[in-house]
Amino acid sequence: MEEKIIEIKDLLHAKRFSELKEYLKEINSVDISSFFEELKGEEIIIMYRLLDKEKAAEVFTELDSDIQEKLIKVLTDKELKDVVNELYLDDAVDIIEEMPSNVVKRILKHIEPEDRKTINKLLKYPEDTAGSMMTTEFIDLKENMTVEEALAKIKKIGVDSETVYNCYVLSATRKIVGVITLEKLLLSNLDTKISDIMDQSIIKISTTEDQENVANMFDKYDEYALPVVDKEDRLVGIITVDDALDILKEEQEEDFEKMAAILPSEDPYLKTSVFTHIKNRIGWLLILMLSATITGTILAKYEAAFEAVPLLVSFIPMVMGTAGNSGQQTSTIVIRALATGEITLKDWLKVLWKEIRVGTLVGLVLFVVNIVRIYIQYQDIQMALVLGLTLIFTVIVSKSIGCLLPILVKKIKKDPAVVAAPLLTTVIDLCAIVIYFQIATSILTGIKGV
Amino acid sequence: MEEKIIEIKDLLHAKRFSELKEYLKEINSVDISSFFEELKGEEIIIMYRLLDKEKAAEVFTELDSDIQEKLIKVLTDKELKDVVNELYLDDAVDIIEEMPSNVVKRILKHIEPEDRKTINKLLKYPEDTAGSMMTTEFIDLKENMTVEEALAKIKKIGVDSETVYNCYVLSATRKIVGVITLEKLLLSNLDTKISDIMDQSIIKISTTEDQENVANMFDKYDEYALPVVDKEDRLVGIITVDDALDILKEEQEEDFEKMAAILPSEDPYLKTSVFTHIKNRIGWLLILMLSATITGTILAKYEAAFEAVPLLVSFIPMVMGTAGNSGQQTSTIVIRALATGEITLKDWLKVLWKEIRVGTLVGLVLFVVNIVRIYIQYQDIQMALVLGLTLIFTVIVSKSIGCLLPILVKKIKKDPAVVAAPLLTTVIDLCAIVIYFQIATSILTGIKGV
Repeated sequence: MEEKIIEIKDLLHAKRFSELKEYLKEINSVDISSFFEELKGEEIIIMYRLLDKEKAAEVFTELDSDIQEKLIKVLTDKELKDVVNELYLDDAVDIIEEMPSNVVKRILKHIEPEDRKTINKLLKYPEDTAGSMMTTEFIDLKENMTVEEALAKIKKIGVDSETVYNCYVLSATRKIVGVITLEKLLLSNLDTKISDIMDQSIIKISTTEDQENVANMFDKYDEYALPVVDKEDRLVGIITVDDALDILKEEQEEDFEKMAAILPSEDPYLKTSVFTHIKNRIGWLLILMLSATITGTILAKYEAAFEAVPLLVSFIPMVMGTAGNSGQQTSTIVIRALATGEITLKDWLKVLWKEIRVGTLVGLVLFVVNIVRIYIQYQDIQMALVLGLTLIFTVIVSKSIGCLLPILVKKIKKDPAVVAAPLLTTVIDLCAIVIYFQIATSILTGIKGV
Repeated sequence: MEEKIIEIKDLLHAKRFSELKEYLKEINSVDISSFFEELKGEEIIIMYRLLDKEKAAEVFTELDSDIQEKLIKVLTDKELKDVVNELYLDDAVDIIEEMPSNVVKRILKHIEPEDRKTINKLLKYPEDTAGSMMTTEFIDLKENMTVEEALAKIKKIGVDSETVYNCYVLSATRKIVGVITLEKLLLSNLDTKISDIMDQSIIKISTTEDQENVANMFDKYDEYALPVVDKEDRLVGIITVDDALDILKEEQEEDFEKMAAILPSEDPYLKTSVFTHIKNRIGWLLILMLSATITGTILAKYEAAFEAVPLLVSFIPMVMGTAGNSGQQTSTIVIRALATGEITLKDWLKVLWKEIRVGTLVGLVLFVVNIVRIYIQYQDIQMALVLGLTLIFTVIVSKSIGCLLPILVKKIKKDPAVVAAPLLTTVIDLCAIVIYFQIATSILTGIKGV
């Protein structure tokens, strides 16, 4: 790949345009589009004009929106008309959503009136729903068609369809009565009736379905395309698997950010301004900082204890750290298991019981390791016992909170990743401190309790 | 969906098998297979025998491996032969990999000798590589074929191909010279030469490619299938997008677990034994606990300081918590950006500069909020200043470490998610404590330093 980019650069700078034009034929549209990032000024339009019409539209779709904007400004009316009418409507909608309004006006002016109506309809669907992902360019067939008639229709309208591989058999009221793949059509006799070979186990998506659910359905059903229906169950569009893949990655990255107490960002890291980064992170940071003061206030009540035995203070990081880590291990696993459907709300007791057992045994291991360690380092058997018992109890409590909190949050219909992961540290820190000092004041002779 | 499951259950228990057989025709194979989880004993084989041959193989592929094993034990030799020969080879390989050896022997005995040879070859590829994901059932064409000849070949061998939608044009030495889609073949004139219309911008995967890279290539290139070539660049197999989707989800879940300091697990949460859960979590928990003792030892050196001003202790949770949270925000974003290719190693200076600026401004906000809060609560301007300055500096340092550590780990060719995320808390806690008490001993009059 690197060599190809160097080759393109050399040809471009040497102005060997006809060689470059030939060379570009062997390079994938996606790779060509990522190369555009490195072009400056006039190079962009020169490069673009070396591509044939079909490839130009493919490359255009893959470009970052700021480069698309630059390009639109310098394209002639005919060139703009060519590329926008080559686009599939869902791609056109995606592009339009990123453009400033004067550019949108110019684009729409050059789109065929029929398509313009459809695009405006698609733009109305709420963002992040199936309606906003779909395209209306699909192949619909009738039940009483023969395979021969179906293939003829596909040949006629296929060039405008996002995909010809899944065809939808519709009733008179445009409800889906069956699905048939191009593969099946090709491998059947020409006079077979569609109704005899179509698949009746249809998976449908409603226009209002959340995009994350749409992506999960593609993963579950292993389909290349799925139909989208409106409230009256009529076929209005299709979504193809490549769009679902993009959504899947997007949603996963959002989940990572939520679990680190960050508001999800729209753009890639380096393209996000310092100001936006701050905006995404300051909220939770403030909340968590202020809630840590509750832990601090509780800690202050045990002043008498750590004045009497200052050694107690030096173990605070280990106690809080271990509690935090074990709680986060559990909460991460449970939040992901809830998100992927591995566990449901009614499994809460099974999960809690599993975590209590894991916590007890893990706590016992830490207990033993710690007692040995502290005795070797300090020869203080009472302190060893305090820390050991603290660790067992905090680990059990942390893991219990770590699984119950996400489940509770999901029960009240909020997103566990957003609420639970950040709040968890605060709750667990609090419990860890209380458990620690209560055990300390009970066991260490001569310390006054709270 | 719920109503369908209830309907199936009712029909099954009422032994209305012919109605059930008809009803099952309208239900997707994936949904039928998830229903098998709820069947017991004889019901499994009864249900299975109600499915037609094609659907039976589809359902079989989707079943959990323990149910597949139960089924294989009760299927007749003919039934077993039917289903295993209906399977695509990559699915057969996946199934065989999960079975105990006596079951594998029985399966292989009923597979056609040619396929058996291929399966054994596929089983030899290292797990998690393209070779272990691929199937050898693809359509290959010759350059000098016409569209008519190509379609004829597809009709002949198409039923055995994993996909007929992408066909590979091979040279005499079986190297790929072009790719052509079924769509293009269908929409072209019958006498057109393949070499005139084939796409020469071919994306290839090597058999040794890591499965995560394979999944990312599908996401990047929006293809339905990609060809796999051996060391001599010859076409040996294909991978389809549904397999890539599964891998993508699997890899993402692994990354979540790595970042929570857990060894990734193979099975769903509830199916993983308590013992396995412990094994996956105890490692890092021990390491982190022992490394927290370093922080504790440093903290002990400041004993004189917090003996003189006990209030300092109560702010330890807030200081460590804020440092930890800001560091984790940064490290999560940077680790994910490295994983998705948004940033590369050579961007390290840009990233550091961005994080320093974000850290400074975020730190300033926390500085102000905290000074106000502490002054209101304690009327102690010196303490307010100590905490304020501590927060600014720890946030800047945490965010710097948070971005540099993952990049450093990637530089030495280790996985940032595994190493950086857990280690980060330890390093940051240490820095936070040192910064805190150094500032405290400098500012608060009357405290002796370390």
